[in-house]
Amino acid sequence: MSERMTQDAPPRPGALLARGVCRYMLSAGIAPVTEFAPEARLRADVMGVDARGRIWIVECKSSLADFRADAKWRGYLAWCDLFAFAAPADFPHEALPEDEGLLIADGYGAELIRLPAPRPLPPARRKALTLRLAMAAARRLRAALDPGAAAFDSLSGED
Amino acid sequence: MSERMTQDAPPRPGALLARGVCRYMLSAGIAPVTEFAPEARLRADVMGVDARGRIWIVECKSSLADFRADAKWRGYLAWCDLFAFAAPADFPHEALPEDEGLLIADGYGAELIRLPAPRPLPPARRKALTLRLAMAAARRLRAALDPGAAAFDSLSGED
Repeated sequence: MSERMTQDAPPRPGALLARGVCRYMLSAGIAPVTEFAPEARLRADVMGVDARGRIWIVECKSSLADFRADAKWRGYLAWCDLFAFAAPADFPHEALPEDEGLLIADGYGAELIRLPAPRPLPPARRKALTLRLAMAAARRLRAALDPGAAAFDSLSGED
Repeated sequence: MSERMTQDAPPRPGALLARGVCRYMLSAGIAPVTEFAPEARLRADVMGVDARGRIWIVECKSSLADFRADAKWRGYLAWCDLFAFAAPADFPHEALPEDEGLLIADGYGAELIRLPAPRPLPPARRKALTLRLAMAAARRLRAALDPGAAAFDSLSGED
């Protein structure tokens, strides 16, 4: 879980961007969950769901090298209705794919510069993802509110 | 949000039971959210969702007087697949409706004594509740992880 990671190790630059992205999402009515794995090989920086039930994924790129080292991002397109990159203001944005959404972000907030084109998920996949997001967020929330809860969690390690 | 309540005021006896109930739910693969309002007039002590997508509601009764003062509990039956009461070991359990589930709980855990009979929700309602649970849990989680997040939350006050 991301909250553990930030206690045990210095935050990656992407994790700081993710905090700003989450603040943007909250302001836009999208409920965000960081470090969520839609399938075993993938781990989205920020996944979110809005009141219309649409699933968002935002991948945070702290630098051009960070983006170029990422061979996986196209894999996320099959797991969201809306996909966007988030990058700092000094990132060369023209290097990012024009067909995807774009947020300018720092650790304190973010701004949506380019709206993602919706690629609607099959309803069964959206339904399954929504359920898994609900369970992951609820379980992490309990761990945050009740330090004794984690020892009871039979699903520990499943996201 | 319940986490604020517990900081600002002494926890109600029911809130202590809710902590134990949440631990039980985690152990049973049910992801719990406390103090969730399925509709404006209601506020469930613990609502949860399991990997099969079933919605649970558990109402915590610290005493017989607490149960008898509750004129609302039947209203929750329309908002869950499975309904149970949670009460302390010294509660007169025969006073609770035999058709509903029963957990014996304290602040540290709980045990399921009587399995609730499922009353399957209409799929559209289950879908809407799952989405709202996901959003509420994710938003509360962000508030717990990032003290600056709440100021951004455009949905604040909606659950």
